[in-house]
Amino acid sequence: MTSYIKIPQNLKPADPQGSEILAVERAKAVFNVKDLTLFIYGEEFLDIMHRVLPLLENDPIFDKSELYYMGRTELFKKALACEKRLAVLTKEYKWGSKEVQLASWLIDIPGPFNVHKSMFIPTLESQGTKEQREKFMIPAKNFEIIGCYAQTELGHGSNVQGLETTATYIPETKEFEIHSPTLTASKWWVGNLGAAANHAVVMARLVTNGKDYGPHPFIVPIRDVKTHKPLPGITVGDVGPKFGFNSVDNGFVLFDHVRIPHLNMLANFAKVEPNTGNYIKPPNDKLSYGTMVLVRTKILLGARYTLARAATIAIRYSVVRRQSVDQENPTKLPDGRIIETAVIDYTMQQYRLFPVVAMSYAFSFTADELMRLYEENQEKTYKGDFSLMADLHATSSGLKALSTSVAADAIEDCRRSCGGHGFSSFSGFTHFYQNFLPNVTWEGDNYILTQQTARYLFKNYRQLLDSKDSDSRPSNPTIAYIQQYMRNPNQVCPAIEASDFNNPEIQLTAFAHRAAYLIANAVDQIDKHNRTWNSMLVEIYNISRAHCQYILVRNFIAALQTTNPNNGDTTRQKQLKSNPSLRTVLVTVCNLFALSTMEKEVGEFMMSGYLTSQQATLLKAQVLALLVELRPNILSLVDAFYIPDFLLHSALGRADGRVYETMLEWAVKEPLNSVRIDNNIYSSRFLIEGQDDSTLRPKL
Amino acid sequence: MTSYIKIPQNLKPADPQGSEILAVERAKAVFNVKDLTLFIYGEEFLDIMHRVLPLLENDPIFDKSELYYMGRTELFKKALACEKRLAVLTKEYKWGSKEVQLASWLIDIPGPFNVHKSMFIPTLESQGTKEQREKFMIPAKNFEIIGCYAQTELGHGSNVQGLETTATYIPETKEFEIHSPTLTASKWWVGNLGAAANHAVVMARLVTNGKDYGPHPFIVPIRDVKTHKPLPGITVGDVGPKFGFNSVDNGFVLFDHVRIPHLNMLANFAKVEPNTGNYIKPPNDKLSYGTMVLVRTKILLGARYTLARAATIAIRYSVVRRQSVDQENPTKLPDGRIIETAVIDYTMQQYRLFPVVAMSYAFSFTADELMRLYEENQEKTYKGDFSLMADLHATSSGLKALSTSVAADAIEDCRRSCGGHGFSSFSGFTHFYQNFLPNVTWEGDNYILTQQTARYLFKNYRQLLDSKDSDSRPSNPTIAYIQQYMRNPNQVCPAIEASDFNNPEIQLTAFAHRAAYLIANAVDQIDKHNRTWNSMLVEIYNISRAHCQYILVRNFIAALQTTNPNNGDTTRQKQLKSNPSLRTVLVTVCNLFALSTMEKEVGEFMMSGYLTSQQATLLKAQVLALLVELRPNILSLVDAFYIPDFLLHSALGRADGRVYETMLEWAVKEPLNSVRIDNNIYSSRFLIEGQDDSTLRPKL
Repeated sequence: MTSYIKIPQNLKPADPQGSEILAVERAKAVFNVKDLTLFIYGEEFLDIMHRVLPLLENDPIFDKSELYYMGRTELFKKALACEKRLAVLTKEYKWGSKEVQLASWLIDIPGPFNVHKSMFIPTLESQGTKEQREKFMIPAKNFEIIGCYAQTELGHGSNVQGLETTATYIPETKEFEIHSPTLTASKWWVGNLGAAANHAVVMARLVTNGKDYGPHPFIVPIRDVKTHKPLPGITVGDVGPKFGFNSVDNGFVLFDHVRIPHLNMLANFAKVEPNTGNYIKPPNDKLSYGTMVLVRTKILLGARYTLARAATIAIRYSVVRRQSVDQENPTKLPDGRIIETAVIDYTMQQYRLFPVVAMSYAFSFTADELMRLYEENQEKTYKGDFSLMADLHATSSGLKALSTSVAADAIEDCRRSCGGHGFSSFSGFTHFYQNFLPNVTWEGDNYILTQQTARYLFKNYRQLLDSKDSDSRPSNPTIAYIQQYMRNPNQVCPAIEASDFNNPEIQLTAFAHRAAYLIANAVDQIDKHNRTWNSMLVEIYNISRAHCQYILVRNFIAALQTTNPNNGDTTRQKQLKSNPSLRTVLVTVCNLFALSTMEKEVGEFMMSGYLTSQQATLLKAQVLALLVELRPNILSLVDAFYIPDFLLHSALGRADGRVYETMLEWAVKEPLNSVRIDNNIYSSRFLIEGQDDSTLRPKL
Repeated sequence: MTSYIKIPQNLKPADPQGSEILAVERAKAVFNVKDLTLFIYGEEFLDIMHRVLPLLENDPIFDKSELYYMGRTELFKKALACEKRLAVLTKEYKWGSKEVQLASWLIDIPGPFNVHKSMFIPTLESQGTKEQREKFMIPAKNFEIIGCYAQTELGHGSNVQGLETTATYIPETKEFEIHSPTLTASKWWVGNLGAAANHAVVMARLVTNGKDYGPHPFIVPIRDVKTHKPLPGITVGDVGPKFGFNSVDNGFVLFDHVRIPHLNMLANFAKVEPNTGNYIKPPNDKLSYGTMVLVRTKILLGARYTLARAATIAIRYSVVRRQSVDQENPTKLPDGRIIETAVIDYTMQQYRLFPVVAMSYAFSFTADELMRLYEENQEKTYKGDFSLMADLHATSSGLKALSTSVAADAIEDCRRSCGGHGFSSFSGFTHFYQNFLPNVTWEGDNYILTQQTARYLFKNYRQLLDSKDSDSRPSNPTIAYIQQYMRNPNQVCPAIEASDFNNPEIQLTAFAHRAAYLIANAVDQIDKHNRTWNSMLVEIYNISRAHCQYILVRNFIAALQTTNPNNGDTTRQKQLKSNPSLRTVLVTVCNLFALSTMEKEVGEFMMSGYLTSQQATLLKAQVLALLVELRPNILSLVDAFYIPDFLLHSALGRADGRVYETMLEWAVKEPLNSVRIDNNIYSSRFLIEGQDDSTLRPKL
C-alpha cells in the first residue's frame, strides 16, 4: 500500500541534529570501543557476524520494513518465509549451529520450524535408538518430517508428573494407544503444532500390563505428510493470539485412541519389551541434568543479549532526546542560545539506565563462566564424575529465574524511560519485549525453579552443620562462602567512607554474608521451628536471588582480574593487561553492578547485620558517584555491545541518531494512512438514523 | 470465518470442575459479598450498572467475541462502530456523564471520539468565550465537528514551554498563522487526529508584535468537514502501531503557514486585541490546578478499577488451577484420591496476589477521599479560598505517579502468576494491560510529577524550620506529620511481637516518620551541602513515594473508623457498625496493605531509625500471618469488586470457573484455524528449488 501523505522535504529536526550529538558523545569515551567488543565476544563471534549479517541485510526475504504493521496471519507467513530462506542459506553456505544461531537472532522473527530444530531433532538425537534415529532424523533434517515437542497440557504445566495423556501398550498388536481422557489432557502451547508440524514428540503416561509408569516420550504422526490433513482420531489447531510470539503457531492436540507402532516410543533410555509388555527401567538419569543446565545457560545468554538491546535503544535515545532546561546547569549551543538539557544528563535517567548497562555486562561474564563449567562438567560426567553437577544445576536454575525476571522488568523500564515514544512500536521495544516474556515461565517457572536452588543450598548447610570439621577444605565455592559465614556470623562491614564500597572484598563479603545468613535462618526455621516447606516459599525465593547475585558479582570481579593464580594468562587477561583504560572502565561498571544491586535489597544487607544505617546511606551516595563517573563512557559502553541496526529495527536506537526523521518516515507507512477515509463514516447521520445497523458498521 | 476444527463433545476437564471449586470457596467467606460491594461503590453506582450493563451485553455492536483476533485496522473499525452506537444510546436513554463513563469502561475499546468527548469539548467549555462556545460547541456535541487536542510534539513532551509550533498574529488580516518551523515541531500522539478528527485545539507559541508569549490554545480546522480531505498547508496522518491503544487513531500534523481567523484563539483567559495585536494577560491561573487535580484523581480511580480487574482474574484462576502435590499437606477428593494442590494454597502465590487485592482497596478509599477533597476545594476556590489547593495538587500528583507505576507492575505480575496461560490473549490481561500502560507517561510522566510533590513538601518543612513556634496548630495534615517528626526525630517503633504491627498507630507513625525523615534529610542536603536539584532526583522520587504511601495508609485506616469525631456517622460508618464481620475482614485487608508496603521498602524504615533488624524480621512474619488470615475470604474479596464477565472477557477469570472449556472454545476460533493449510507451503521442495522466490513466499 502507498500512503497518501507527502512529508514536506525541507524540514529537519530542531538543532542540534542527532548525528552531531552522537559524534560528540562518542568522542568522550576514554577507551576504544572495538577493544571492548572483542573483549566481550572474542574473535570467532565477530567473524561469524561479519559473514552472516550482510547476507541477511541484503536479502528481501528478511526485510523488516513491514514488520510492525503486520497482523497475526501476515506475521506467521513472514516467519515461514524467513525459516525457509534460512534453511536454504544454511545449506548453501554450509553453516554450522553457531552461524544458524546468530542468523536466527538477527532475523528476530521466531518461526514455525523453531521447535523442530531446537527440540524435535535434539530429542530424537539424545533419546532415540539407532533405528529410530535412522527412520526419523534424515527426513526431519530434510524438512520432510516437521516435528514439535508436546509436553505441557491445558491443565498441567510445570509439574510433569501430573500429565494426563496416556500411552497404553497393546502387546497383541505391538502398538501404543495414545489417548486424552479429559479436556485438561489436551496438549497445549506446543510450538509449531498449530499449523506447521506433521509429527510430535508426545510426553504421555506409559501404561503397560496395567501399571502406570509416568510420562515417557512417543513419536506421534499428527498430520498426513502429503495432504497435511489431521490424521484420524486427532483434533489439532492453533491456541490463538498471545501477548507476543505471534509469529509462532503454538498449538493444541487431543488424541482419541490413536494407535502408533512399538517403534515410536523413544527407547534410548526406558523401553517396553515388545512381546511381554514388560517395562525396562532407564539407567542413571543424571545425564539429563546436563541438558537442563545447557538450556538454562542459553536462556541466561539470551537475557544478556536482550538487556544489551534494550539498553542500547534507551541510552542512545536519551543522548539525543532533550527535555526542559536544567536551570542550575543549562546547556548552550555554540552561539550561546540555551537549549533543553539532554535527558541522559538527568540523574534519575542515569539511575534507571546505567545499572541496566552494568547488568548486561554482569550477565555476560556469568554466562561465559557457566558455559565453561557446563563443558567441564560434560567432560567429567562422561568419565562418571558427577562432582560438579549438583552445584551447576542449582546455580543455573536460580540464574535462569533471576536473570529473566530482572531482564523483563529492566526492558520494560528502559521502554518507559523513553517517554511517550517508548510506547510506539517504532521504538523497537514492543516486538522483542513481548517475544522475550515467555522466558519467565517456560523451562521452569521462575518461582518454582528457585526451590531447586534453595534445596541444594540447604543440603550443603546441613552437611556443614553436621560435619565435625566445618573448617575442612571446601569442595566447591558455594560451600566456601557458607563456611566463611559459619566461622564468623557476626562479621560487619568495615566501610567508613562511601568510596570504600568500591573495594571488591567488601562487595563479595557483603553478598556472601547476606546469602549465608538467609540460608542459615531458613534452615533453622525448618529444622527447629517446624515450618513447612510451603510456608517458607517466600524466604526460599529470596535465598535463590541472594545466592545468584553473589555468583554474578563474583564472576564479574573474577573476569577483571589480571592474573591467573594457577595457570598462565587467558586471552582476556592479556587484553586487560595491555589495555589499562579498558580495565578501568570495566571496574567502574562492575562496581555499579554490585552496589546498585546491593542498594535495591539494602534491607536484607542490614537485617543480616553486615550493614549499619549509616553505611546504607554511604552506599547510596556511592551509587550516585558511580553514575557521574560512568557518564562520559555510557554511549560507548552500549556501542560496544555491537548490536546492528538490522536487529534493533528501532527509530529511537539507530546508531546514526536520525530519531525523528525515522519516526515520521515509518508513521507515513501505517496502513491506516493508505486508506482514503470518507467523511461519511464519521458524519453525524448516525445520530439521526439511529438504529440502522448498516450505518453503524463503518466501511473503510 | 468458521473453523475446520470440531472438538469432541464428550470431554470435560479433570475433576473437580471449576464451578464446584468456586462454589466451595465462596461458601468459606465470613462476610456478605453484596454488603461489601455496596460499601465500596455506594447505591448510585450499582443502580447505573444495573441499567447500563444489560443494554451493552445484548447489543451485537458491543459483542467482544472477535476482539482478541483483530488486527489494527479491524480494531479501529470496531472502536468506531462502538463509539457511534454509544452516542446513539446516550441520546436515546438521555444518559448523563456517569452513565457514559460506566458504559465506556464496560465497552473497554477506546475509540476515535474519545478525546473529542474528554478533552476537546471540555476545553471549549472552560477556555472558550461565549461566542466561541456557540460557534463550536453545538456542532461538536452533534459530532458535526470532531475535535482533538494537539499539544505534544515529536520532539517535546512533558515540557510544554519547549513547544515549537508558532501562532503568529497578523493584524492586517486579523488572522493567526499556524506554522511548524521544524520536523520536531510536528504535533504527535494526538488522540483521534490520525483518522477521525476534522478540528484540533492546537497549543502553539503565540507571537504578536514580535514578541513570543509561549504556548496558547487555538482552534485549527484540519480536514474538510464535507470531504474529510486534509485542508491546504496541512500534513496529517496516524502515528502508526503502538504497544497498546491500537483502536485509537493517535495522529501527527505539520502546519505550513496555515491561517485561522482571530476568533479561533481560545480567549476566555489570555487574548489578543484584534486591531493592535496587543497581548492581554490572563487573570489568576490557579483555577487550572483544579482541572489537573481532577484528571489525576480520575487516573487514580482508573488504576483502582484496573488493579481490581487484574486481581479478579488472577485470584479466580489461582483457585481453579492446580499444580503439584503439597506433600506435607495434600489435597484429597471425597473418595480419598490425592489431587494436585490449588495454586492459591501456595504461600508464594498468596504473597504475590493478596497484596494486590489489598492495594485495590487502598486505592479505592484514597480515590474517594481525593474526590471529596476536590469537590470541597472547588467550592472554596470559587469563593477565592485557595487554602486546600497546594496540598491537594501535590498529593494528587504524587498519587497519580505512584498508583499508575505500582498498578502497571502489579497487573503484569498478576498475569505472570497465571503461568503459561497468562501469556494467552484469552487470559484477558494483555488487552487491558497494554491499554493501561500509557497512564505511566501521559498527564505528567511519573518521574517528573514526583518533583512537584517533593517541592511542596520541602517548602512546608522549610517553613516549619523557619517558624519560631513549630508547635503551632498545623494548617493541614501534611504539616502535622512533619511537625510530629520534628518534635521527636528519634522516635522508635514499640513493637515487641509480630502482631503488634497490626496496631494502626504503629503503622501510621512508621509511614509518617519515614517520609518526614527523608524530607528532612533532603532539605539538609540541598540547603546545607549545596546539592543541586538534579543531583537529588533519586531522593525526590523516594520522598514522593513515601509521602503518598503514608496518605494511602492514613485514608484506609480512616475509612474503617466507626465513629466520626466531628459530625454524625456517615453512610459507611453506619454500614460498618451494623456489620462487624465486614469491618473485621477490611481491617485485615488494611493491615496487609500497610505491612506488605512497609516490607517492600523495609530498608528506608530501618534507615530512618524507626525499625530495628529484629522488628523487620517480625514485620515479615506478620505479613505471612495476614496471608493465612485472608485466605478463606480472598475469592469473595475480589467478587465484591463486582466486575462483570462482559468486562473481564477472560477465560481464566470467569465468574463460573469454566476456565478450560473457554480456552478451547476460543482457540478454535483463531483465524489461522479457519485456513485450509496445504502441505505444499511447508514441503521440503524449497530446499531443492532454492532461490525461487515464488516458492519462498508462502500462500495461505
